[in-house]
Amino acid sequence: MSILPYRPEFANESPYGAPQLDVPVCLNVNENPYPPSPELIADISRGVAAAAAGLNRYPDRDFMELREDLSAFLERESHVHVDPANIWAANGSNEVMLHVLQAFAGPGRTVVSFAPTYSMYSEYARDVSATWVAGARTDSFELDLDEVRSVLERERPGVVLLTSPNNPTGTALPQEQLIEILDIARHTGPEPGQASLVVIDEAYVEFRRDGVSSALELLSDYPYMAVSRTMSKAFGAAGLRLGYLAAAKEVIDQLTIVRLPYHLSALTQAAARACLAHSDQLADQIAKIREDRDSLVEELGALGLKTVPSDSNFVMFGTFADRHAVWQGILDRGVLIREVGPEGWLRVCIGTPQENAAFVAALKEVI
Amino acid sequence: MSILPYRPEFANESPYGAPQLDVPVCLNVNENPYPPSPELIADISRGVAAAAAGLNRYPDRDFMELREDLSAFLERESHVHVDPANIWAANGSNEVMLHVLQAFAGPGRTVVSFAPTYSMYSEYARDVSATWVAGARTDSFELDLDEVRSVLERERPGVVLLTSPNNPTGTALPQEQLIEILDIARHTGPEPGQASLVVIDEAYVEFRRDGVSSALELLSDYPYMAVSRTMSKAFGAAGLRLGYLAAAKEVIDQLTIVRLPYHLSALTQAAARACLAHSDQLADQIAKIREDRDSLVEELGALGLKTVPSDSNFVMFGTFADRHAVWQGILDRGVLIREVGPEGWLRVCIGTPQENAAFVAALKEVI
Repeated sequence: MSILPYRPEFANESPYGAPQLDVPVCLNVNENPYPPSPELIADISRGVAAAAAGLNRYPDRDFMELREDLSAFLERESHVHVDPANIWAANGSNEVMLHVLQAFAGPGRTVVSFAPTYSMYSEYARDVSATWVAGARTDSFELDLDEVRSVLERERPGVVLLTSPNNPTGTALPQEQLIEILDIARHTGPEPGQASLVVIDEAYVEFRRDGVSSALELLSDYPYMAVSRTMSKAFGAAGLRLGYLAAAKEVIDQLTIVRLPYHLSALTQAAARACLAHSDQLADQIAKIREDRDSLVEELGALGLKTVPSDSNFVMFGTFADRHAVWQGILDRGVLIREVGPEGWLRVCIGTPQENAAFVAALKEVI
Repeated sequence: MSILPYRPEFANESPYGAPQLDVPVCLNVNENPYPPSPELIADISRGVAAAAAGLNRYPDRDFMELREDLSAFLERESHVHVDPANIWAANGSNEVMLHVLQAFAGPGRTVVSFAPTYSMYSEYARDVSATWVAGARTDSFELDLDEVRSVLERERPGVVLLTSPNNPTGTALPQEQLIEILDIARHTGPEPGQASLVVIDEAYVEFRRDGVSSALELLSDYPYMAVSRTMSKAFGAAGLRLGYLAAAKEVIDQLTIVRLPYHLSALTQAAARACLAHSDQLADQIAKIREDRDSLVEELGALGLKTVPSDSNFVMFGTFADRHAVWQGILDRGVLIREVGPEGWLRVCIGTPQENAAFVAALKEVI
């Protein structure tokens, strides 16, 4: 028996992670299939070299220039002005979420979301020793206001995590529903008079269909709402690890207390700024991925399969009596997708047209 | 009054940080004063460009190549073989410490160190909602075995943090004392039969004087000991944010559970590997800094000041009836040092010979 002082909370835990398999076609972790352009790689390299010239010094703890560039990007992408002082960033949106939960959840507090949703949320809550409670989504994976009200009033959470578009279902949260939820959350914080902090996780929002809104548009009206985004998906920079968040200054101040000093390296700041300077070039790529997603939904339908309407760069499809057998059959044909979400469903991410075709060919053989 | 669900634990907290002032000579945060060589900058840039070519993909979650390079470095630097599987890394040693405390401390557990020591430790403990207890060092800032035994047996900590060389005093922990502490800690874990995890923070160890050992030499004998290091100090890569740790595989496994997936970016991994490939060039630089430290200690002595024997790249000196006035006077002359540690003392880090001379000149004028 080990003499290590293991925490009983982790007695039955094992490390998170999608299987990392060496497979020709990887459509399992919702990456953008298109690598950076040679021009962007050159700019990253130049920016990093400039930052490396002062590598012996600690980086700017408050990443002011990066905040300004993120602010400018949000203005271009969502036509909402968010002041740099209202922007936070960290090593991936998972670190952003950790900061949020450290600041507003923690021991004795509850974090609420509505399942099926992103499988890491429960681990974030565990990491800060908060209680995790998942309410239910409807059969079509949308939020139900009665359920939301009931769970929030019962649990009085410090933090409510709502993913839009949701992962793994692809379901967006309509703006009018979000407003009603915010009105509920105004009164459901842990102490009387407190709100719950409502975090809208918009990791995939750049892929939304026409007419779908970003929660950013409501930001100035709701000081207890925060909107989290990432450069890992539409930006095609999963390897960079840069997540960010927009919220009231009072929220950002609390994140500044719990963040580890100098959490964003000088190289991360420089590379992120290079990516942001090239963000105009993403528009065509995102449009292509959206088109290919809609085509894939049609193809899956033509195969007699159900799909969930998706505002994201992935599609949940099914249902299968033995989804693991289908997943394995597709993998045996060189295509890795994800066995995740409610029983009977599988999730595939949009790749290049060739990758999508390989997936459809494999799927046809399996079913 | 704000409606935000603030945690009462953070009610009186403000963000950590040494003052970031625009001053000609900065000797306040123990950085290496020498920037990377042009050859190293070029290699970082090349390595990052290669990694950026696949930036749309998530990085290697387990950073296997980086672990191998860190293992090879430890073998060169300390003549101890540490298997790559026994190595952990994160964004700065503060994230390494966060992982350790998440895995082995947390709510209901206690983290122990001996003051004066690194001022961030109490914040790390707070961040994981653990109890922080600081025992006392002797008047010469060394550890006292009776005090260590008494505090450990009383507190039964999950984690004991021992800094060697200590910050801000520069004091190394002698190997024979460490062995006695490890023998005590073998029986002082939170539950009967458990040890406390003893973490030796060797952030500054590369600056140690001849004849001073690294705790790494004891690693294979003590599965409940971990040794943490950083590339921020002797490596001259504070802007990179790369801390690492050597420990038994069972310790590493627990860190893997609590770490956020993909916490080390592809660019961080590539840049760290470039720095490690150039580590042989550090030897002359470190030797120079050690010499300059010993000269500065002599100069301070010649001014009638006390210094604490230092195995680090900084010197604690004093004592002053009004240390703030001395700090301010030096700052007014364009040299920023650190007002930290026990009352009456100040800490100055070793800069270039010109910077050290500017510091001594300013100090002479002030006292």
